[in-house]
Amino acid sequence: MLPEKSLAWGRSKSCIRDLAAYGSARKAEIGEDKVFDFSLGNPSVPAPPCVEEALRRALETDSVQLHGYTPAAGLPSLRRAVAEDLNGRWGLGFAPELIYVTCGAAAGLAACMHGLLLPGEEAVAFAPFFPEYRVFAEGAGGALVTVPPDEDLRPDLAALERALNERTKLVILNTPNNPSGVVLREADLEKLAAVLKQAEARFGHPIYLISDEPYRELVYGDKPAPCVPAFYDDTIICYSFSKSLSLPGERIGYLAVSPRMAGRQDVFDALAGAARACGYVNAPSLMQRVAEQCLGQTADISVYRTNRDLLYENLTALGFSCVYPEGAFYLFMRSPEPDAKAFSERAKKHELLLVPSDDFGVGGYVRIACCVSTEMICRSLPAFAELAKEYGL
Amino acid sequence: MLPEKSLAWGRSKSCIRDLAAYGSARKAEIGEDKVFDFSLGNPSVPAPPCVEEALRRALETDSVQLHGYTPAAGLPSLRRAVAEDLNGRWGLGFAPELIYVTCGAAAGLAACMHGLLLPGEEAVAFAPFFPEYRVFAEGAGGALVTVPPDEDLRPDLAALERALNERTKLVILNTPNNPSGVVLREADLEKLAAVLKQAEARFGHPIYLISDEPYRELVYGDKPAPCVPAFYDDTIICYSFSKSLSLPGERIGYLAVSPRMAGRQDVFDALAGAARACGYVNAPSLMQRVAEQCLGQTADISVYRTNRDLLYENLTALGFSCVYPEGAFYLFMRSPEPDAKAFSERAKKHELLLVPSDDFGVGGYVRIACCVSTEMICRSLPAFAELAKEYGL
Repeated sequence: MLPEKSLAWGRSKSCIRDLAAYGSARKAEIGEDKVFDFSLGNPSVPAPPCVEEALRRALETDSVQLHGYTPAAGLPSLRRAVAEDLNGRWGLGFAPELIYVTCGAAAGLAACMHGLLLPGEEAVAFAPFFPEYRVFAEGAGGALVTVPPDEDLRPDLAALERALNERTKLVILNTPNNPSGVVLREADLEKLAAVLKQAEARFGHPIYLISDEPYRELVYGDKPAPCVPAFYDDTIICYSFSKSLSLPGERIGYLAVSPRMAGRQDVFDALAGAARACGYVNAPSLMQRVAEQCLGQTADISVYRTNRDLLYENLTALGFSCVYPEGAFYLFMRSPEPDAKAFSERAKKHELLLVPSDDFGVGGYVRIACCVSTEMICRSLPAFAELAKEYGL
Repeated sequence: MLPEKSLAWGRSKSCIRDLAAYGSARKAEIGEDKVFDFSLGNPSVPAPPCVEEALRRALETDSVQLHGYTPAAGLPSLRRAVAEDLNGRWGLGFAPELIYVTCGAAAGLAACMHGLLLPGEEAVAFAPFFPEYRVFAEGAGGALVTVPPDEDLRPDLAALERALNERTKLVILNTPNNPSGVVLREADLEKLAAVLKQAEARFGHPIYLISDEPYRELVYGDKPAPCVPAFYDDTIICYSFSKSLSLPGERIGYLAVSPRMAGRQDVFDALAGAARACGYVNAPSLMQRVAEQCLGQTADISVYRTNRDLLYENLTALGFSCVYPEGAFYLFMRSPEPDAKAFSERAKKHELLLVPSDDFGVGGYVRIACCVSTEMICRSLPAFAELAKEYGL
């Protein structure tokens, strides 16, 4: 009598949240410092000072204005500021009218799925991928089609070509990637765009590229993450301030429809209509002010690089095999036995909480969150050494 | 190629927002004090001091905790506090496990529609009703069936009985009502519950009563609004702090599934799953702390009663016919000509911005927001007098 999928989504906890809950219980049992919890992608560094300054400044302003409704698409000043920020990075002529302020990237992704997918149409995701993509796509009445990665865990374009068909409405790209840390470069994006343009021509309709960019600022090389819509006109950027400003609980981000997209106004309207039907009135008004004041700034994310280096060097030295993360704040490590869940269970015996990769759409890996204290990583290394020994590494 | 309904919802502005936009432009043209803008339901009184205190106190706490993810259903402490607050008012045994903290009432309503309606099933609303009910119901793949009011603009139970059928999955009740100000009393709820119980027995399945209560605290008589789930077990309360704490832009509220509902855990899970599929990760974390600190308190809402009295007395004295609002912060006034839109246009000539009732599902009325400054009401009275004269009242 109740929608089966809603029931299932409400009942199932993600394995990440399950593991985190186990961690909380275990810490209460044997002590906080005895458990090495690498489960959650919750930023471990405080929000930058500009956030507190913006909050305090906002509190000096008129309460009725500050906490009042904003337009559904966001404060006009914030939409202008976002467009200017993007144009300052990349040019391209982003337009305030095509910026829609959202309750985080998840709300933006859900609006894309509900606003673009007709029943039976397909959203394509490159494995490994954020597990909620499936919930959003199926919640919108569409289907999620997954493309297995190449041997380096990077998007496999030949596999993408095979997955595209007349029902393909959109492709989700997540670079820097959760959970692999892979960052696509300009040459990768050129090749991806070529495949998509060819498919658009072959099937005679747009295929939207949803560029899910919550980790855009978390890149550890010399060069920033490239501008995805510079390579492919039918792109919608889905951004969140969760990771860059360490505000994941506050739910603030935006959608930016490329100013180069042919049907951009219709697409924007469909996203806005879908957000409305999902019950979004406006993104939290106080946090809209904070985002406007803090655009272009980040929390002190240097610790994530320190942690990545520390984990990568030590774990590979122990004989584990890891994808070298160029961005985001996770280390994706190959399980020494084929069953990642069994490996995760074995790691638990050493109080190491590592997320098995199955829910990300690939088997045989674990995700290790680098957004933890450096000190905990140091303390955890003997446990990793014991674990390696157990597998004869 | 794009979902037609999403496109339509994204393109259409509500007539309320249209009128408000006209008002802003007109104020810029002829001066702020020359336009009598009664269009928006934005609280006109500041948030109570406890809100600023709670915000400042929160800023003293650990940033990573404060702005971090919370569980999807909300902070456990807030869920407990909400259940205690409801039990303190009404008893009934509300359970923290059945409280789901939402991004405002709209998010809660959307979760109800998406979580309860199967394709083709019907949601019933009593006219006059909040226009977004239709968007939420149709967005979830259901249909909205409307029940015309009786001659006093109150729910017509005979008409409800005729509307109920085997496809009816839920009924939305909004008391105190936007836009009419009608408040149902215990006897009304008893009769309503009897009709619904009979229909449940006749059709052999639950019919959920969604009690949309953002105006619960805004009641002007001696007695508070009654407890809806005390009368009908299959009730889900949909609450928002928008009006009681003057925080409409912050998007914070909750769903409370009645502890007396037979299938309560399944229903809770379906709502949670629907919220997840709509992209809700958690309600804004800072505002969850604020809500917890401010439970049971309200902004100084006495001005709304002053304004109601002033408008009701003066407009009826001028010969207009109004529904006497016992709650909420609107005055619903009969249009002196059958076409409320034509009347609203005529009122504009006197710089009076009154929302025609058509979008609320009844013709022939205008909604006058009482959440404005008392001083503006005083200044507007000569314009209302001119308008009355024009109609020969």
